[in-house]
Amino acid sequence: MKRSQIVLIGAGNVAYHLGHRFHQQGLDVLQVFSRKKTKANKLAKQIKTKAITDLQQLDKNGDIYIIAVHDSAIALVAQQIKKLIPNKLVVHTSGATPSTVLKPFFKNYGIFYPLQTFSISRKVDFDNIPICIDSSRKKNREQLTHLAKSISQKAYHINDQQRAILHVAAVFVNNFSNHLFHIGQNIVDQENISFDLLRPLILETALKVQDQDASKMQTGPAIRGDDTTINRHLDYLDKHPHYKELYQLLTSSIKQ
Amino acid sequence: MKRSQIVLIGAGNVAYHLGHRFHQQGLDVLQVFSRKKTKANKLAKQIKTKAITDLQQLDKNGDIYIIAVHDSAIALVAQQIKKLIPNKLVVHTSGATPSTVLKPFFKNYGIFYPLQTFSISRKVDFDNIPICIDSSRKKNREQLTHLAKSISQKAYHINDQQRAILHVAAVFVNNFSNHLFHIGQNIVDQENISFDLLRPLILETALKVQDQDASKMQTGPAIRGDDTTINRHLDYLDKHPHYKELYQLLTSSIKQ
Repeated sequence: MKRSQIVLIGAGNVAYHLGHRFHQQGLDVLQVFSRKKTKANKLAKQIKTKAITDLQQLDKNGDIYIIAVHDSAIALVAQQIKKLIPNKLVVHTSGATPSTVLKPFFKNYGIFYPLQTFSISRKVDFDNIPICIDSSRKKNREQLTHLAKSISQKAYHINDQQRAILHVAAVFVNNFSNHLFHIGQNIVDQENISFDLLRPLILETALKVQDQDASKMQTGPAIRGDDTTINRHLDYLDKHPHYKELYQLLTSSIKQ
Repeated sequence: MKRSQIVLIGAGNVAYHLGHRFHQQGLDVLQVFSRKKTKANKLAKQIKTKAITDLQQLDKNGDIYIIAVHDSAIALVAQQIKKLIPNKLVVHTSGATPSTVLKPFFKNYGIFYPLQTFSISRKVDFDNIPICIDSSRKKNREQLTHLAKSISQKAYHINDQQRAILHVAAVFVNNFSNHLFHIGQNIVDQENISFDLLRPLILETALKVQDQDASKMQTGPAIRGDDTTINRHLDYLDKHPHYKELYQLLTSSIKQ
């Protein structure tokens, strides 16, 4: 299969990492669009392509147009480009938005969703990032799978319903666990104890479930039914009523 | 400072990993005690020392006696050995139990608490495990610090109150976050989606806070105030009322 020529619409975290990865793997990125000129220029320069700040300048020679903008802007962007590239394959990269948001605008539409948390300041191990692709047409799915496999070892066909469920689960394992790390950090900060004491524990907790079921890795006072320790913790948490409520709900959830 | 001779009382997860690390670092472990003969024999053989199953056989030539048994058994063990080694330095390895549980039995008592989650099936990177030591006597603290530094790069003097607080925070970042991983796994399992799709995300979430504040790493619909996505998630969670309650409390906690 011929290598697809890509147009990147967006220059945020996801577009930044996808763009760098495409470039690293020798794929053609024809253009990077961002409404913000400095952002578009910066990413375009880094991955040796052209920057545009006006969607009317969209290159019509692309094979795959990747919309990597905020969820709320996807439909807006789609509407603006539909007349320019009515027959092209247009995908978005969101875990939270159905593919069908693109249906009113394009015949060939789909999903190219890298399931990872991105920050511009951190390099990620792209080989291991699951790329979830979808399209209603088989030909498009094949093209997207081919693109996914050129940047990662893990390509999955995941439909809208499955992706919506994955996104809920991702909120639990990523957003909510980060919030628990934040609570742990707050607790020790307020007592002038270094968060460095907890960092290796956080890493090991994540490493343990890389090849094990999380249910089998559960430890701590709740699963042991150690009410002496639980009550000691609850006494301490009187000074953090909000954390206490979370502690109680999570403890009862583990005990179930 | 002369290298301490160690007696290990216990052969569970913590004793297992400490014993192996002491042995690896060339420290003298005089004996391993466990009430269970096969457990005592197994660990003793692995680290080339003697096994005992009766505390009356305790070697009196040790310098540091490490009680690594369940929290509820620490005082019981201490009582049984107090007359055998009344002047020796005796420590326990628990994060949840005050050092003072040993006070009625020994003049020289303290803490040797490796802040990590251990499973016999997993090797851990001991160099980076924070070892929290404490004792009411300076001489003992020095001896414990020396021992800690012989097995890890990170030795901390942490008193009973600080350790109790650390333990609460550890429950949030370790036990509770593992439970969230479990929930994520349950959600995708029930829809026949592989948990492998979420594993890289879990690892990256933990890696991000290794050199950053967790508060700065918060992402997701709650921190963005993206109520459209939150409501879509809550609709889905109607089939998991218990998870829905947790989702709501964690979301409101992030929003605060």
